[in-house]
Order: sequence, then C-alpha cells, then structure tokens
Amino acid sequence: MIIESARLLAEQEMFPFFKAMDETPAKYDGKGRVITHPQLKNIIQKAAEQHWIGGSALFEHGGLQLPEMIFSTGHHLFQAANNGVEGYTGLSSGSAGLITNFGTKEQIDTYVPKIFEGHWQGTMALTEPQAGSSLSDIITSATPTDTGYYKIKGQKIFISGGQHEACENFVHLTLARIDGAPAGVKGISLFIIPKFRPEPDGNLAFNDVYCAGDFQKMGQRGYATTHLSFGDNDDCRGFLVGEPHKGLSYMFHMMNGARISVGQSAASVAMAAYQASLQYAKERPQGRRLSEKDPSKPPTLIINHADVQRMLLTQKAITEGALSLGMECNRLFDLSHAISGEEREKYFLLLEILTPIVKTYSSEQGSRSAALAIQVLGGYGFTTDFPVQQHYRDLKIMSLYEGTTGIQSLDLLGRKVTMQNGKALQLLTETIVDTITKASAYPELQPYAATLKQELKRMEAVLKHLSQFAQKGEIERYLADATVFMEMAGYIVIGWQWLKMAVAAAQKLAAKDTGSNPESFYQSKIHTMEFFFQYELTHAAACAETLLKTSALTGISDHEAFAW
Amino acid sequence: MIIESARLLAEQEMFPFFKAMDETPAKYDGKGRVITHPQLKNIIQKAAEQHWIGGSALFEHGGLQLPEMIFSTGHHLFQAANNGVEGYTGLSSGSAGLITNFGTKEQIDTYVPKIFEGHWQGTMALTEPQAGSSLSDIITSATPTDTGYYKIKGQKIFISGGQHEACENFVHLTLARIDGAPAGVKGISLFIIPKFRPEPDGNLAFNDVYCAGDFQKMGQRGYATTHLSFGDNDDCRGFLVGEPHKGLSYMFHMMNGARISVGQSAASVAMAAYQASLQYAKERPQGRRLSEKDPSKPPTLIINHADVQRMLLTQKAITEGALSLGMECNRLFDLSHAISGEEREKYFLLLEILTPIVKTYSSEQGSRSAALAIQVLGGYGFTTDFPVQQHYRDLKIMSLYEGTTGIQSLDLLGRKVTMQNGKALQLLTETIVDTITKASAYPELQPYAATLKQELKRMEAVLKHLSQFAQKGEIERYLADATVFMEMAGYIVIGWQWLKMAVAAAQKLAAKDTGSNPESFYQSKIHTMEFFFQYELTHAAACAETLLKTSALTGISDHEAFAW
Repeated sequence: MIIESARLLAEQEMFPFFKAMDETPAKYDGKGRVITHPQLKNIIQKAAEQHWIGGSALFEHGGLQLPEMIFSTGHHLFQAANNGVEGYTGLSSGSAGLITNFGTKEQIDTYVPKIFEGHWQGTMALTEPQAGSSLSDIITSATPTDTGYYKIKGQKIFISGGQHEACENFVHLTLARIDGAPAGVKGISLFIIPKFRPEPDGNLAFNDVYCAGDFQKMGQRGYATTHLSFGDNDDCRGFLVGEPHKGLSYMFHMMNGARISVGQSAASVAMAAYQASLQYAKERPQGRRLSEKDPSKPPTLIINHADVQRMLLTQKAITEGALSLGMECNRLFDLSHAISGEEREKYFLLLEILTPIVKTYSSEQGSRSAALAIQVLGGYGFTTDFPVQQHYRDLKIMSLYEGTTGIQSLDLLGRKVTMQNGKALQLLTETIVDTITKASAYPELQPYAATLKQELKRMEAVLKHLSQFAQKGEIERYLADATVFMEMAGYIVIGWQWLKMAVAAAQKLAAKDTGSNPESFYQSKIHTMEFFFQYELTHAAACAETLLKTSALTGISDHEAFAW
Repeated sequence: MIIESARLLAEQEMFPFFKAMDETPAKYDGKGRVITHPQLKNIIQKAAEQHWIGGSALFEHGGLQLPEMIFSTGHHLFQAANNGVEGYTGLSSGSAGLITNFGTKEQIDTYVPKIFEGHWQGTMALTEPQAGSSLSDIITSATPTDTGYYKIKGQKIFISGGQHEACENFVHLTLARIDGAPAGVKGISLFIIPKFRPEPDGNLAFNDVYCAGDFQKMGQRGYATTHLSFGDNDDCRGFLVGEPHKGLSYMFHMMNGARISVGQSAASVAMAAYQASLQYAKERPQGRRLSEKDPSKPPTLIINHADVQRMLLTQKAITEGALSLGMECNRLFDLSHAISGEEREKYFLLLEILTPIVKTYSSEQGSRSAALAIQVLGGYGFTTDFPVQQHYRDLKIMSLYEGTTGIQSLDLLGRKVTMQNGKALQLLTETIVDTITKASAYPELQPYAATLKQELKRMEAVLKHLSQFAQKGEIERYLADATVFMEMAGYIVIGWQWLKMAVAAAQKLAAKDTGSNPESFYQSKIHTMEFFFQYELTHAAACAETLLKTSALTGISDHEAFAW
C-alpha cells in the first residue's frame, strides 16, 4: 500500500514535469534568488505529506519507522520518474537523519519537524572552490562566541538544493574549521547553518547566508546547484553538531547513505531509460529478420532483431543488477540497525564494502546502459521528443556526486578491502560463496556458480599481487589502478546478485510457486543471469589482466617530463 | 601552409561560436524557416573561400585536387573546434562529390560551383519516418514525365543541414522509388532535388520542397536537423542521377566517405575534450599525492594523481588511436584513387573493411573518452562553464549517423569479412602482420608485437567458430553478436595503429632523428601504445569469450514468450 502510494505520486505528480523541469532549468535571477519550476513546491509538499521525507525516521522524531528497504523503494520510483525532484526530498531526509543522530534535542526539535513538513530544505555544504574533492583543504571558518554559537565565514559551491524559491528556509549542514583547529581532516567540524535562524521570540532572522550564483548543467537541470556565501556581513551563526573536530565522521554518516542513494538513483534513471527503450522496441516496426530476404514482407518489430535484444538484455542486466545491489545495501542497513552484537558488525562491514561499489557500478554502467537506450531508439533517441537522452544527460552527474569514481575506488581498495585486516572482504567472499553453494544445487545454475567461484579466485590473486606493493610501502603503486580494481569488483558483485536472483527464480520454478507472476518472469531472470555471465562478467578477467601486469604506466612523478 | 590556414579558421571563426551555437540552437520558426546562428553564414562563406568545401575536387570541377589526407586534416580541426559547423561544409563536399562522380556535365555545371561557393547547401535525404534504417522500405515516389524530370512526392526526416537560413538554396540528394520499380533496395533511384530549381531563363523557381519542422536534440544543437516535405503542391521536380534503380550504390559512394568522416569527427570531438581536460589537469591544484600525509603541504596539480593520469592516457590512447585509423582510411582513399590495377584493388578492399570499424570504434569509444574528460574536471565538467559536457552531448549522435553501430557491425561481419571469399580480411591481416614484423625488430616492442599476433589468432578462432553457423545457413546466429565482434575488431585494429605509431617513434628515437619534436614526443607515443595494450586491448579477449560461448541468448523468435 505504501509503495503503491509512491507509485501514484511518481506517476501523477513527478513524471509529468520531468521534461518541463529540464526545459526550464532552475536558474539564479542575479538578485540572490534561484527560481525553480512552479510545480516544485507542490511536489515537495505532497511528498512530505505522504511521509516520503521523514518516513524512515523514528516515531519520536515524527517518522513512521519505515524500513529503509520500503522507504528506498518509494524513492526508487521517484528517481525513475523525476530524479531531480527526488534529489530535493532525499537530501532533506539525509540532513534530518544527520541531525537526529548527532544533534541535541533542541536542534532536533527546532529543525527536523520543519524539514519533514517539506517547508525547510536540508542540504550538505562540503565543497569549496579551492578544495574540490579534497576536504582536507576546506577553509570556511567558525569563530566561537561566548553565547554558544559560532560566527561563520566562507564560500561553498555545488550545493544541491541550496536556497531556492520552493522552500521557505534552508538548513545547511556545513563543514567548517573552528579557529585554531588542526590542519587537515582532523580539524573539521559540523555546523547547522540555517538561512533564516529561529530567534528566541519564535521569529526567523536572516542569517547572512546568500546565494551568490548557480551552476547551469548538462543534466538534472531542474535541480538547483548553487554557490553559497556565509557571513558576508559578519552575521552568520553556525550551531555546532556534536563535538568539535569530529565533523567529518558525522558527515560520513550522511555521506554513506547518500552514496547508496546516488547508486540507486543511477540504477533508477537507467531503469527508466531501459523501460522507455523496451516499450519503443515492442511498438516500432522496422526492417526484417536477417533470414527474411523478401522485401515485400511487412517489417518486423525491432525487438525481434538480435542486436536490439542484446541491447535490451544488456540494459536489463545492468539496471536490475544494480537495483538489486542497491536493495541489498538497504537490507543490510536495516539489519545493521535491527540487530546488535557480532551479527550487527557483520552487516555493517558488508554495507561498508558494498557502498562504494553500488555507487560506482550503478553510475558508470548506468551511463553505458542509457547510451544503449538511445541506441535502441536510433536517431529519435537523440531528440528531445523522447526522454532517453535526458536520462543519459542526468546520469552523467552520478559518477561525480558524493565522491567521484576515482575517490570511491580509493575508498574500496585503500580502506574497505584492508579494514579490520580484510574482514569486510572476507565476509563478502563468504556471503558470495554461500550463494554459489545454493546455486550449485540446481544443475542449470552449476556452470555459473563455477564461473563465479573462479572469478573470486581471480580477485584473490589480484589482491595478492597488489598487496606486495602495499607491504613494501609503495602505497601509490598499490592504489594506482584502484579504478580498474573497482570495475572488476563491480562485475563480480553484480554477478553475485544475478546468481542470487537466479537461485530465487529456480526455487520458485522448481516449487511451481510463481505466485502472481507468470513463469516467464522467473525464466527471464535466469536468462538475464546467463546473459550477464556471458556478455558482461567476461570483462572481469580483462580488468584482472591489467591489474596483474607488472609495468607501472601511471603515477609518473614528473608530469613535465612526459609529453602528453 | 594549407593546414595552418585551417587552424586559423577553426580557431578564429569556428571555436568562438561553439558554445553560442549550442545555447541558441538551430530552430524551426513554425513558418517554414529554420533559423541558425547569425555567424553561420559568414563561417560557411569563409570556409568556401578557403576551399574547404571544394578543395579535394578535381581542377576541372573547380577544386584544388587536395589529397584526402590534407583535406581531412583541415576538417579534423574544424570538427574539433565546432563539429556542427563542420557538418554543414562536410555535407556539401560529399554531395558535390556524388554529383561529380555520377551526374551529367549539365548537372555538375548547374550545382557543383554553387555548392563549392558555399551559397548552396548539399544534403543527403535518405531516411523516412516509416523506414528508419531500413532503406528497403522507403516510399518517396518519382513519377516520370515526358520532359525529362520526375515528379517527386514524399517525406524525409533527420535531414542534416536540410533547408536553413544560412544558405540560399539546397541540393537534396534524395533516394526515391520510380513508379513501378521493384520492391526493396533494388528499386531505389537517386535524384537531385533542389529547393529552388534553376529555370532555363537563369532564374530560380521554388521547387515545392518545404521544411515541415525540425528536431531538437541533446547535442549538435547548432546543426539543423529537419523534416522535408516534397511535392505537397504536386510541383516538385527531381532530376535522376545515373541510371534508374541504382541509387543505393551511388549513395553508398557518398555514404562510405560520410562514415569515415563521422568516425573522424567523433575522434576529433573526443580529442577536443581530451585536450580541454589535459589543460585543466595541468592547471588545477587539488589534494596531495597518496604518499604525502602532511595536510599542511601545498596541494599538487591533479595531473600528478595516478588515476587522473589513467584517465588522460585512456583518452589519449582512444583519440589518437582513432584519429590515426581515420588518417589510415584517408590515406587508403588517396592511394586507391592514385593507383590502378591489383594494387588499387588492395587499397580499396582495405578501405572497405576498415570503414565500419573507424566509424564505430571512434563513436563508441569516443563517447567513453569524453566521459573521462568530464570526470577529470570533476563537478565542473558537468557544468556549462566548460566545453567537455558539450563534447559529450555532441558525440552521442556519432554512433547513430550514417548507419548505427548495429548496422556497421552487420556490415563488417556480414559483408566485409566475407567479401571476395574473405580477401579484404586477409589483406588486413597481412597488413597488420607486416607491422608486427617491423615491430619485432625493436626489443622493447617485441612483447607487444607478440600480443597483437596472439589477438589476430584469437580473431581467427572466433571467425572459425562463427563460420560454422554461416555454413549451416544459420545466418541470424552467425550475425547475432556482430556488435561484440565489432568491439573486438576495434580493439585489435587500434592496437595495430598504436604498434605502427610505436614503430615510427622507435625508428625516430633510434636514429636520433626527432626533428622539431622533443624526444619525449616519441617516447610518449611508445608509452601510450604500452598503455593501450595493457588497459584496453585486454578487453578483446573478453569479447572473444562472449563470441565463443555456445548458447544463443539473443535472436529469440517470439518476443512475447519472453518476459522482459
């Protein structure tokens, strides 16, 4: 019932404005205001009323305690329908979650209900012009006062949803450096900085946070991206969250959720493109089967061409595989919050190692998938008459949001693989082996189970090879091809998801328990698994070959010596 | 000197309007006119004056007889500077070439000088709404009259440069079916259909060719794409080119050139994106080397990060490799026109087999390359403040123009590989082996020579496997994975180009004959070759594994039986 309400909201309120929001982008008016599409306010309000901002929060914070799997399934539908709009609501959700986790009761009471009502927009304010991805170099300053708050001064860029006309107030969760704090990431603190600060008398006072401009983009054009200036008139107050200098670890609470959410969003947008191209392929007659030489025969539907089937199956394999991994992460999130002790630790570690993978696989392969959607439509796919080109444009941001592919890959190989002496990786391997064991019980799945086992061994060999460099302290060399390792890990992990889906399908078919689905639903899951193994997973070995080569062709110290 | 003039034209007249033409797209005004950017007329005029429309034509047709390699090098610069603008001039060139090759003297005298002067625009009018890529199904009709011309009636869509305000007249080279012609491609004839037809008195009369609308697109927005309607008032005259029913073979003369040109354009646009990201990487300080733990040290330039070097080298390997193959095709074109007899046949066959490969590799991998350019710039790459996102958007059309990737792949595996009992493929293999032999003379190139030899053997094994199906008459099965075969062939052919470049570089370095280039120029060619073999060519084996698998997962006859 809850998911059905999300579907109606997505279909009736969000998708109808998907194209219009692209054609009339959110835009800075030169006078401090960012004008968004007139429907945006209405959509955010409706989403808030139906608990799609606060739904996963605790009862005591005004939420419905929806499991993340349910809440995220709703958001999946929004992301597929209108990913820019989902951004506004998802960001508010995440911001409120950060406050409820680390804020004081007063902070929670002041900000969270307003965010859940959709009147106030939560944002994450991390990036600064000079620092980019290097949070270590942020310089926004926070000067303590004797009345509890901090005076803030600084510039933040690329702030999604950062001050626009569809919300009344903004709650910027901002990283800044308290005067005298240590250099680097160990001196970063987290502040709540509202655009309008609540005064003791209940009124709101302008908090000296200006929108100084915006960024026009190739995609997600309806989703405002702004430049914020804090403290131009020396009157910007920031309210410390938690302890000083621990801001980055708090922010990563939200960031981890945001990374999974970006991965899921990428999978959802690619899914929308896949569905659009599938529908087109089922309706468009063109050409004849290659075995049909008689030009007087009527044209066939393009879905009957083998190459179109290949493009559709590639999209299905990527998007359903990525979405399945996203849901696996949401499930692990729920489990790690529902359970305690060693079991909790297990789910938490699995979530840690899968987070950079779901973010990266979905965004990188999602773009490739959407390119195939365009290709299925032919020239029409390139025109603004069809949505697939917008999906393709929107998707490109996903490999940059919340840490680029390069940064996710360093996180995977540099932190997650090695954390707790490799425990997260060991747990992941055990979990995959468990699926392999289950699959081995079905004769038709055995070859695929064997292939995945072989891929796990290959990954082990690669890590053994790379670890030589780490052991010698050659950390740059160890990490130089982290992105290639990420690509390989992505193929393997999605291969695992497909095998898992195939096992579930084989169980249903064997038990003749297909419920309300036709048998073909489950047969197609097994078919797509086979396709993934035959067409996609084969590239994992190619990545391994690159990683096992011994010559170092990147990481060259003196770039001037090298004629690019 | 000639190329330098192209560089100035590209830099001073074309690139300055690259962004503006994207922001003010060519647009149908609802009253039959397509309004283009005000500078377009001026640019086309300047290009014409400097012989960049007619330069490669024979003296007798008003050209300079420039070799295709020189003429195309000029166009490469235009494509990199402003690919939409180059489209207008390149299309005129190709159209004039078609008329000079197959038209009568009167047709040549009437149309070609005006096209070369840039006052008249040549176009190719093939696609119809109901037929799409399936030219067999076009229905535009041509009714003979007793005064020599044909009365034309029909609709054509996706006509690049098809009637806009920057040219005075249009010469549509149009495929149509003479009344009573055989069904299929054997009944298609080629017509010259001007927008304004020259009358015996020297005046121009409107020829009943209306622009009925345009297509707005995600890229190449300054390049008009129109819908043309012929003969609404029963007064559209078409002038037959060559013999009746042979139109498709004539059109393929132009089409082959256009395919190479699209491939080169894709390489050029990707090259522009690469150069923009390279410049950014050399100027942007951000973060520290992974071995540097002290956050108080100043940030390093991002080009010093291994992953950024990987992204730059990937782009360099793809774009220089693709451009090299484009130039190889231009060279073969020149040779096949300068030489006669068996030698000519050899160059012609090589050109035949390489044409679908240069078109497809450059467009598919070019898009991937431009995605990496965006990635190097981080969030900035997604904004309209930088050109890389426009390159990425523009590039997407290249895998659709002049036959989609699927069609190119059917052409490669279905026609070119098998033509003359495999002679073209045999010649290509011999040519690649010749490069392998040359490379084997340099110890540092030997491992790569050996790898390429192994890849050739692998391709042979794949073809042997696939030919079983062809021999059994299972033509659908033989061609089902043509696109995967194309991907594999692309890696191998570009590997050959890189080995060829490495041999040339090794020769220069061994002879200490580096001319005006620094040694590092040649060293970097060898370095990039190594990179291509280590990071890209490894994926050829993955494609082969897919192709060698025995189960058929696509080409399923009854799509309804399959739950997508």
